[in-house]
Amino acid sequence: MNIPQSSNPRVVIIGGGFAGIALAKKLSKQEFQVVLLDRHNYHTFQPLLYQVSTGGLEPDSIAYPIRKVLQGYPNFYFRLAEVLKVNTDVNLVDTNIGSLKFDKLVVATGTETNYFGNTELEANSMAMKTIPQSLNLRSLILENFEQALLTDDLHEREALMNFVIVGGGPTGVELAGALAEIKKGILPKDYPDLDTRRAQINIVQGGDRLLPAMSEKASEKAEAFLEELGVNVWKKLRVSGYDGKLATTNTDISFRTETLVWAAGVKAVSLKGLDGEAFVSRSKRLLVNEFHQVKGFDNIYAIGDVAQMESEAFPHGHPMMAQPAMQQGENLGNNLVAESKGNSLKPFSYRDKGSMATIGRNKAVADLPKFKFQGVFAWFVWMFVHLYFLIGFRNRVVVFINWVYNYIKFDREARLIIRPFKNHFKTKE
Amino acid sequence: MNIPQSSNPRVVIIGGGFAGIALAKKLSKQEFQVVLLDRHNYHTFQPLLYQVSTGGLEPDSIAYPIRKVLQGYPNFYFRLAEVLKVNTDVNLVDTNIGSLKFDKLVVATGTETNYFGNTELEANSMAMKTIPQSLNLRSLILENFEQALLTDDLHEREALMNFVIVGGGPTGVELAGALAEIKKGILPKDYPDLDTRRAQINIVQGGDRLLPAMSEKASEKAEAFLEELGVNVWKKLRVSGYDGKLATTNTDISFRTETLVWAAGVKAVSLKGLDGEAFVSRSKRLLVNEFHQVKGFDNIYAIGDVAQMESEAFPHGHPMMAQPAMQQGENLGNNLVAESKGNSLKPFSYRDKGSMATIGRNKAVADLPKFKFQGVFAWFVWMFVHLYFLIGFRNRVVVFINWVYNYIKFDREARLIIRPFKNHFKTKE
Repeated sequence: MNIPQSSNPRVVIIGGGFAGIALAKKLSKQEFQVVLLDRHNYHTFQPLLYQVSTGGLEPDSIAYPIRKVLQGYPNFYFRLAEVLKVNTDVNLVDTNIGSLKFDKLVVATGTETNYFGNTELEANSMAMKTIPQSLNLRSLILENFEQALLTDDLHEREALMNFVIVGGGPTGVELAGALAEIKKGILPKDYPDLDTRRAQINIVQGGDRLLPAMSEKASEKAEAFLEELGVNVWKKLRVSGYDGKLATTNTDISFRTETLVWAAGVKAVSLKGLDGEAFVSRSKRLLVNEFHQVKGFDNIYAIGDVAQMESEAFPHGHPMMAQPAMQQGENLGNNLVAESKGNSLKPFSYRDKGSMATIGRNKAVADLPKFKFQGVFAWFVWMFVHLYFLIGFRNRVVVFINWVYNYIKFDREARLIIRPFKNHFKTKE
Repeated sequence: MNIPQSSNPRVVIIGGGFAGIALAKKLSKQEFQVVLLDRHNYHTFQPLLYQVSTGGLEPDSIAYPIRKVLQGYPNFYFRLAEVLKVNTDVNLVDTNIGSLKFDKLVVATGTETNYFGNTELEANSMAMKTIPQSLNLRSLILENFEQALLTDDLHEREALMNFVIVGGGPTGVELAGALAEIKKGILPKDYPDLDTRRAQINIVQGGDRLLPAMSEKASEKAEAFLEELGVNVWKKLRVSGYDGKLATTNTDISFRTETLVWAAGVKAVSLKGLDGEAFVSRSKRLLVNEFHQVKGFDNIYAIGDVAQMESEAFPHGHPMMAQPAMQQGENLGNNLVAESKGNSLKPFSYRDKGSMATIGRNKAVADLPKFKFQGVFAWFVWMFVHLYFLIGFRNRVVVFINWVYNYIKFDREARLIIRPFKNHFKTKE
């Protein structure tokens, strides 16, 4: 892998998400040689992926080159690599570009979509966890409308314009809201020769309320906002199968749809060699102590969504969001530096800054530690917070301009099929 | 294809480039039913593709949804389709989504890369005529540097960092300049563990000067600018073969390179059924008269790069640039409207607004009809003109912001490998 020997201990970080980047930034003082591995050469700002899928933002403005984050840090190495295995007995990771010894290993691999073993669902539904996936969804949505124009079969046309989003968490809610706004503001103008009123947006939630991790008030209001936008909200309903045409559920309700977005579950991205039952939770997360050490290891840590730190306040670990990930990365970074200097370590304690979801124009819900609110003000706060946490000045400006433009013009101009998703539309390029 | 019958004559336009869009805009007054066909759902601002390849701009900001251009035009139809054949005897086009009768047909298909029959070159080199192609090149450039880090073989490493651009027209010159700036400003910071001074940028031109369509002064200055930036300029040299590793030429000079960009020739995109020898020029362009009618046809027109209108001033047709294409589209539009009203038609006459090329920061060359100039002022004019002709207010603002940012920070932040090009880096997404 061509990483030079160093007299400083080598910290290998797997994953350049919120947790991995926050950690790397704390390790910039040369106590360590740091190697960051990721299968993408960029950091993805996941909370805005749904805006890429719906043409509101360019993919490039929610991505940021990892090399640029680490520019100027001495003794830092980035490698574009896929980790194949961790050999805990000899402190070695195997990757597709070779093996690497580590003194300390930090797993920050995050989560991936969980289909709970349903391979048919996995094969036919769309996920939205990465930029390429979000772009595939963007292409598919637009292709479906192009195709809907061409058919005289009303059933087929309706299936092409019928969107089923499974999962009532923030991803599902935000995507449903954005699609509803496209239906209202853009489709009638873009497709005057199509009766776009027949387009349907459905959100299907297994539990009895949307946004179950938020307050009841937020759930209520999110549902009301979605209904105001014309979204069909289905609760206590579970999608059990999807063959690419028909989505079946645990009841006799079914949906004829060409687009099923699966946002109903995630699981930790597990690494071979680090998947022992002794230290993996039911949701495949790595069990860690308050110093982020994986159970049973001294020099292997896990932070972010992949880590499960159980405590009284969080018996199943922290929520899988950017905030806990960043705070864990920072705390581990501080501790590694402290340890190298012989100072005492700080156990992790999560400062809850609250959570938010946006449903659409002027419509958001926010649960802050001190107060909960919904509506226009929550929407402005949501935008401000997301701009603040976005990495890169240029990204912030471009995203801001897009939002202002989209708001004033009721528009989303990135509705481009750059890489067709359906075979029907593919060209050789 | 589900286009309703109309009492107005149907004009079918193939291609949503500069010519096709300019024509469509002129036909918005309901004298006709207009159907625009394109294999992409967006218009591409081709002059800026090289900035996408080199990470300076997001692809989405130089693309514009065709449906949005035509929003609100009555009796307009867009279809995402690939034209397979024109049946001139029965006024019918066959496409991958069905057949369509026309009263008038306008071919505005533009050009594609011409490898002059060299299939080995075609298979191994990169083209830069479309957004997906430009993104492939962006991925490949970045992947090569990631891979260069991994090898101990100096020859291999140098081949990965050796760029050969074949063709000394504006595309080749602008790409070479942008790569040289990346080498200087970004590589040393992004790859501190790689000796990026070994990276080479070569531009290979068959003729005896770069930018042969411009003034001698512009050619001279462009060459000087490139050399100042450290680009190796090769003139009177022709690349004759490339197996993916070694580029051979008509002399004993050869290049070991993993990246060969072929910008040495274009040919018209010809349509089956409209490729008769009687009306096709040597470069495959359709011969048209001064009213844009394809030789031998009354109701079939060609505009833009695909058309060859021979005149005393332009014995081989107009230059293949945006300006002639737009002017031809506008003139044909005006003529079609005039004809439908029984007014007289205007033969096309090209108003040369000049041509320009940018080599890098503060370095451009401009040949305007009245005066020719080079340097900082030309560079500002170049930027202003490109912003002016870019379609869409949002695109203009986003491009402008990117340029200001890139200028101030000596940076290009869109260096993202969103879709890996080399198999080595591909993941399933």
